[in-house]
Amino acid sequence: MRDLEPIFDPKSIAVIGASREPGKIGHVIVKNFLDGGFAGSVYPINPNVDELLGLKCYPTVMDVPSNIDSAVVAVHASLVPGVLKECGEKGITGVVVISGGFSEVGNVALEQELVKVANKYSLNVIGPNCLGVLNPAARNDSIFLPIYKMGRPKVGGISFISQSGAVGGCIIDLAARAGIGMGKFVSYGNAAVVDEVDLLGYLAEDEKTRVIVAYLEGVKRGREFLKTAKEITKHKPIIVLKAGRSKEGVKAAHSHTGSLAGSHEVYQAAFKQAHVIEANRLNELFDFSKMLDYPVCSGGRIAIITNGGGTGVLAVDAVEENGLELAKFSPATERELRKILPDYANAANPLDLVGDADAARYEKALDIVMKDPGVDVVVVIVLFQTVGIDSRVVNVIVKARETGRKPIAVISTGGEYTEFHRRIMDSYGIPTYGSPSDALASVAKFVEYCKK
Amino acid sequence: MRDLEPIFDPKSIAVIGASREPGKIGHVIVKNFLDGGFAGSVYPINPNVDELLGLKCYPTVMDVPSNIDSAVVAVHASLVPGVLKECGEKGITGVVVISGGFSEVGNVALEQELVKVANKYSLNVIGPNCLGVLNPAARNDSIFLPIYKMGRPKVGGISFISQSGAVGGCIIDLAARAGIGMGKFVSYGNAAVVDEVDLLGYLAEDEKTRVIVAYLEGVKRGREFLKTAKEITKHKPIIVLKAGRSKEGVKAAHSHTGSLAGSHEVYQAAFKQAHVIEANRLNELFDFSKMLDYPVCSGGRIAIITNGGGTGVLAVDAVEENGLELAKFSPATERELRKILPDYANAANPLDLVGDADAARYEKALDIVMKDPGVDVVVVIVLFQTVGIDSRVVNVIVKARETGRKPIAVISTGGEYTEFHRRIMDSYGIPTYGSPSDALASVAKFVEYCKK
Repeated sequence: MRDLEPIFDPKSIAVIGASREPGKIGHVIVKNFLDGGFAGSVYPINPNVDELLGLKCYPTVMDVPSNIDSAVVAVHASLVPGVLKECGEKGITGVVVISGGFSEVGNVALEQELVKVANKYSLNVIGPNCLGVLNPAARNDSIFLPIYKMGRPKVGGISFISQSGAVGGCIIDLAARAGIGMGKFVSYGNAAVVDEVDLLGYLAEDEKTRVIVAYLEGVKRGREFLKTAKEITKHKPIIVLKAGRSKEGVKAAHSHTGSLAGSHEVYQAAFKQAHVIEANRLNELFDFSKMLDYPVCSGGRIAIITNGGGTGVLAVDAVEENGLELAKFSPATERELRKILPDYANAANPLDLVGDADAARYEKALDIVMKDPGVDVVVVIVLFQTVGIDSRVVNVIVKARETGRKPIAVISTGGEYTEFHRRIMDSYGIPTYGSPSDALASVAKFVEYCKK
Repeated sequence: MRDLEPIFDPKSIAVIGASREPGKIGHVIVKNFLDGGFAGSVYPINPNVDELLGLKCYPTVMDVPSNIDSAVVAVHASLVPGVLKECGEKGITGVVVISGGFSEVGNVALEQELVKVANKYSLNVIGPNCLGVLNPAARNDSIFLPIYKMGRPKVGGISFISQSGAVGGCIIDLAARAGIGMGKFVSYGNAAVVDEVDLLGYLAEDEKTRVIVAYLEGVKRGREFLKTAKEITKHKPIIVLKAGRSKEGVKAAHSHTGSLAGSHEVYQAAFKQAHVIEANRLNELFDFSKMLDYPVCSGGRIAIITNGGGTGVLAVDAVEENGLELAKFSPATERELRKILPDYANAANPLDLVGDADAARYEKALDIVMKDPGVDVVVVIVLFQTVGIDSRVVNVIVKARETGRKPIAVISTGGEYTEFHRRIMDSYGIPTYGSPSDALASVAKFVEYCKK
């Protein structure tokens, strides 16, 4: 197995192709390392420059007086093999090649040359033609997209691998915006050297990764991929969005990355066999991964607590449509609920706390429902538009997540005020959703994974 | 047919149950009329108060010296029939009863009394047990939810009717947040007097309404509903989200509003027959309605323009999965495109403008593709994370929408920077989506509606 630790958690890093021009990729990468607070040493490499953003600049990596763990390469494609050779000579083992201009534009020979150098020096190369690597815990960020355009997520346990840089950029940006904590991220581009199987293997062993999410267009080593995935899903869930599912999509994927996408039916059967969870839409990658970050659940009997009757009805529909079951409250639960509810509310599931519910009523209801042995997962609907609801309900739910022994999913539909509160909950590891259908589809995948 | 104009566009309005206490519904409503800049007269009604938020307060509507078009009622349920009688005597024809405490809590007799009074005076009553009415063009806003919790949308052509107040509140809030322009909104609660058939009939005649969207739990006059809907969909699209689709959902809907929801298969068949477009998820109400706000399209041949290859592949998959067709560019189009593209880009559909595309490249590509007679709808993917993209691309797309003769849908996936730019486009009537699957599902409904 490849040791990719120097790529994800380097103590020192060279940026080859570093530039003084603010618009250039080689400038943005150095600046992002500095702005992001990378604790290790950063060595800008450029033969024509002495100093850059306050750092001493070296002509080649060979000229750097200290050891270097890893390098990020952003030079013209034609220079890459030579640069890799120097990395090899220097003893660097992990390199991220951002540069494009290889097999993806028909330049197969140059990519073969790159592979030859990598093999000669046992270099683990990510890319070429990729977006880079992100490890928020190590403040390692080789992604050249400006921070104001693409946010950086907080530290967490969900790791992403993306064949496409474009989709990868969207993934990071959405995760940052939604308050989802990220383990490792890698956009691996042409996968000339390190491929999806290597990356899965690394993330399987990575203690900080609890859930693995992948955007794939094609898989080069199909058999190994499945064998590896099947082994991993015994311990960690893998969620995959496979592009190139349609006939035209396969063609488009081929012209995009040169991947042989293969028939989707074959992939689907293989995913199923390996207990890989398939997402059908981009959003589902997040929806599912948030829910699957819970360690375990006891079954598929769902309790619904709501302050809006209509949304409760939609959630009940979604329970049934996703093959889940509406829990039946025990007589004790009903008795306890009746004590805390106004007389115009029903002590039944879905539990409508009605429009004037406040945080205190949610707290009591959650406490009672969490204790019912006939309930496996609690779906809490909070409509923040109502007069009785404010930030206190967030504390109540966070507390229930900490002390309760049951997974919670939250549904909150709305604009700015709602989004703000959803982000807080998501950042506390409570998965929130904008609609009942999104929430229950995710709960269903979670329940299915726990059963396996 | 009922004349509901005084309810949606009153020149003068009484707020019965107006209060000096900021927390009370009767206070929030008066304040919202004032803050919102309602141009007509507002008459607070409360026998115990002389003055309220700078307005003279009257004991009853009978005491107001001028004519009153409409009244909003927020008093205890038991007082509502008496208050309606006074409205009738005063010559008011449209009343919105916010107050709950009627059939939804088993108080059927009181609701019957309300109906009796309404019939006697030919009062058009919305509610009881409803959220109110919103008409942004008239600055008529009888909704008691605070503005910081639930935004108010700008003026537009999409009108919403919602049986559920909770779902209605979410609809307004989401529309406001997304920059979607709203025609009329009404939450009609128990529908004791004015029901969904009346509301459809009104919106059918309303010149400012171009698209009708409904959240329904059940329909009281099924036959009339379908007859009316079938007539309307010849001229205006109707999009419906029907809750109570599952067995348990039907039960939940019944206990929520007392609606007899009926089997979903029956509804589905009827919707199909009436060319009503069914949404399966809350988000689809918006996704579909934005796209259907375009007047017309020529067919289902889709061109895709993108600056991210991976997202392009996902869009191609979604084209096929939604029964649409990937357009084949004409030789002339391909020739023109080759002139404006860098050599490493393909002049084919999906058209990948590649990662360094800027607004100028989008402008030229859009111009060429819009002219191809083999293209019916243009799907533009803009990933705002890339270095070359900024607000200028929004101007380019807005201009293409104004001058081009073909519908455009935009896909932009990402966080804050992306959301900001999506809202601008949505507010210019360019439907934007966060993912290829959402966009193409909406385009498919649009194409299907145009074919009928």
